[in-house]
Amino acid sequence: MINKGNVRGVILAGGSGTRFWPISRTKRPKQFLSISQDNESLISATARRLVPLLGQESIWVVTNIEHKPLVEEHVPYARIIAEPVGRNTAASIGLAALHLRCENPQMVMVSLPADQAVKDEEALRRTLQAAIDAATETGQLVTVGIPPTSPHTGYGYIKQGKPGVGRTFQVNRFYEKPNFERAKRYVEAGDFLWNSGMFAWKVETILKAIQEFMPQLHEGLMRIDAVLNTAREEAVVAEVFAGLESISIDFGVLEHARNCAVIAAEPFGWSDVGSWDAWAEHFTTDENGNLLRGDTVVVDSRNCVVHSEKSLTAVIGADNLVIIDAGDALLVCPRGKVQDVRAVVEELKRRNRRDLM
Amino acid sequence: MINKGNVRGVILAGGSGTRFWPISRTKRPKQFLSISQDNESLISATARRLVPLLGQESIWVVTNIEHKPLVEEHVPYARIIAEPVGRNTAASIGLAALHLRCENPQMVMVSLPADQAVKDEEALRRTLQAAIDAATETGQLVTVGIPPTSPHTGYGYIKQGKPGVGRTFQVNRFYEKPNFERAKRYVEAGDFLWNSGMFAWKVETILKAIQEFMPQLHEGLMRIDAVLNTAREEAVVAEVFAGLESISIDFGVLEHARNCAVIAAEPFGWSDVGSWDAWAEHFTTDENGNLLRGDTVVVDSRNCVVHSEKSLTAVIGADNLVIIDAGDALLVCPRGKVQDVRAVVEELKRRNRRDLM
Repeated sequence: MINKGNVRGVILAGGSGTRFWPISRTKRPKQFLSISQDNESLISATARRLVPLLGQESIWVVTNIEHKPLVEEHVPYARIIAEPVGRNTAASIGLAALHLRCENPQMVMVSLPADQAVKDEEALRRTLQAAIDAATETGQLVTVGIPPTSPHTGYGYIKQGKPGVGRTFQVNRFYEKPNFERAKRYVEAGDFLWNSGMFAWKVETILKAIQEFMPQLHEGLMRIDAVLNTAREEAVVAEVFAGLESISIDFGVLEHARNCAVIAAEPFGWSDVGSWDAWAEHFTTDENGNLLRGDTVVVDSRNCVVHSEKSLTAVIGADNLVIIDAGDALLVCPRGKVQDVRAVVEELKRRNRRDLM
Repeated sequence: MINKGNVRGVILAGGSGTRFWPISRTKRPKQFLSISQDNESLISATARRLVPLLGQESIWVVTNIEHKPLVEEHVPYARIIAEPVGRNTAASIGLAALHLRCENPQMVMVSLPADQAVKDEEALRRTLQAAIDAATETGQLVTVGIPPTSPHTGYGYIKQGKPGVGRTFQVNRFYEKPNFERAKRYVEAGDFLWNSGMFAWKVETILKAIQEFMPQLHEGLMRIDAVLNTAREEAVVAEVFAGLESISIDFGVLEHARNCAVIAAEPFGWSDVGSWDAWAEHFTTDENGNLLRGDTVVVDSRNCVVHSEKSLTAVIGADNLVIIDAGDALLVCPRGKVQDVRAVVEELKRRNRRDLM
């Protein structure tokens, strides 16, 4: 039914997230960090998980030109599409779709973020396989939805509609990240799923949807398509991307499209590793609930996250603190306030401290 | 009445305190640190405060041989007595007394720790002058007592006896550092003073008292006295000090002597700067009560002490935290737990981390 040769995995690694400052920086965003005991980076793990499903030769990565060397290091077998400047996921997916269509107009594309964590990899692959099958059979835009386990305010939500082919449902509606009250109502309603940011579709389907709902992007993509794989490609991409708005595929296309389906994932222990707090859940703690990495002395403390890259970090009598020492910058913060690290990065920007961003 | 030429100030700078780890280290003890906005070290300030009273040429410093270069840098005009190994204040004071007696047998000695803070310097000098006068006139061992402002458990206490000459009282008894309940009773009693560690006495008086109550130390001092200012002095001091017990002048002599007087100091804003918390009181805080030194970004935080020597320190949503980044070592600790920094230093000792001690 599904022809493996017609499917490509496209890993979106354009992020330059600040949520893991001071470890993540402009020059080393989150996807290149490790959150596992064996020091495998998030992007390496994302690619490795796809290989049994698609083969190494079918893994593509879209990234900023600045991070191309890092991608080559972390996923040596990947084919890389370099963006001159980040313009969010709609542009990345559109550009990848051009390249895949050039290989084969019937190509099916599985698109997924580079920086997520998954515990049950077999279950992930079964879910992706089901999404690929549905996209192939129905020609729909298929999103992988995660059955919510808490009223998380850091995720978008999808309300399921009528059952569709196989394990899919029609999408009733996409919802942006809610506040806590709203998130609670969604979870209690029972027919909401988290938007995982993992998608499957035929390249012709997504390009058609881009044409309909983001005509300016489509026009730019067509200019690129005309010079794809020629000496002029780089210059045209640079020119087109410079003029693009920064819009996500969800906001720019999926929320408007009528042919959207969602597939409820098997519970495969998914996380978008959105904060230091979420990061800490992927490690083993000591008997006092402290997660300690690097050179540390911890006395009379509980449930702390201590990550010390260069110097010794000593902690006395502390509860629920996050302490991240990156050598040239240090973060100290209660676990409940880790989302506010953005405020620090904003302040550094204001002070023009590019050395620390 | 008092002949300025017959008085010497002896600053005891033998400390190797761990209470200011990670800033203070074996190689740079507390007395060489600054706690003022203008970066004057504690020992520099201690010496400078004595100069109007005694003159630069009358300032002596007793220190460990290892710290002699630091003393030369911080108090360039001082005469330095170098100890081969620290044996607490009884040995330091005895050794200094030999040197002063060699200059002039009638010499009066004002002895004081190198690492205290004083706000009203004129008031300090008036009090020291009164102590010198009393020691000169009465031949007593005079301690400067500080009227207590709180039931502090970090200080020794002195119970006043009958009034003596001038502003002095006989010492009824010395008390070691009390627990909180006991300290409260002392303060409520009204006739207790904190033991400041500042003393005045004739050299012949203190040497006689050492002879009576610490005969072993006295015997060693006499062996040193026989070779003082000769080529053999250094070797004999090394040999004698190696065999000495480590005993404070309070415990070894003053608590036993009958000719002890105490003089109640004018309120001159005294502190022994015994912890990071006390240290913080000497600086101006921001509008949220945060004391910030070095490169910091502090968001939504109150009453924190942040000292960042080399890297940037970012703090979010924290209350009452002490964060001290010395470059190669970092301390994070609630303000109420700063005394426990000793536990960290003990642990470093156990791990044989001499690089950080």
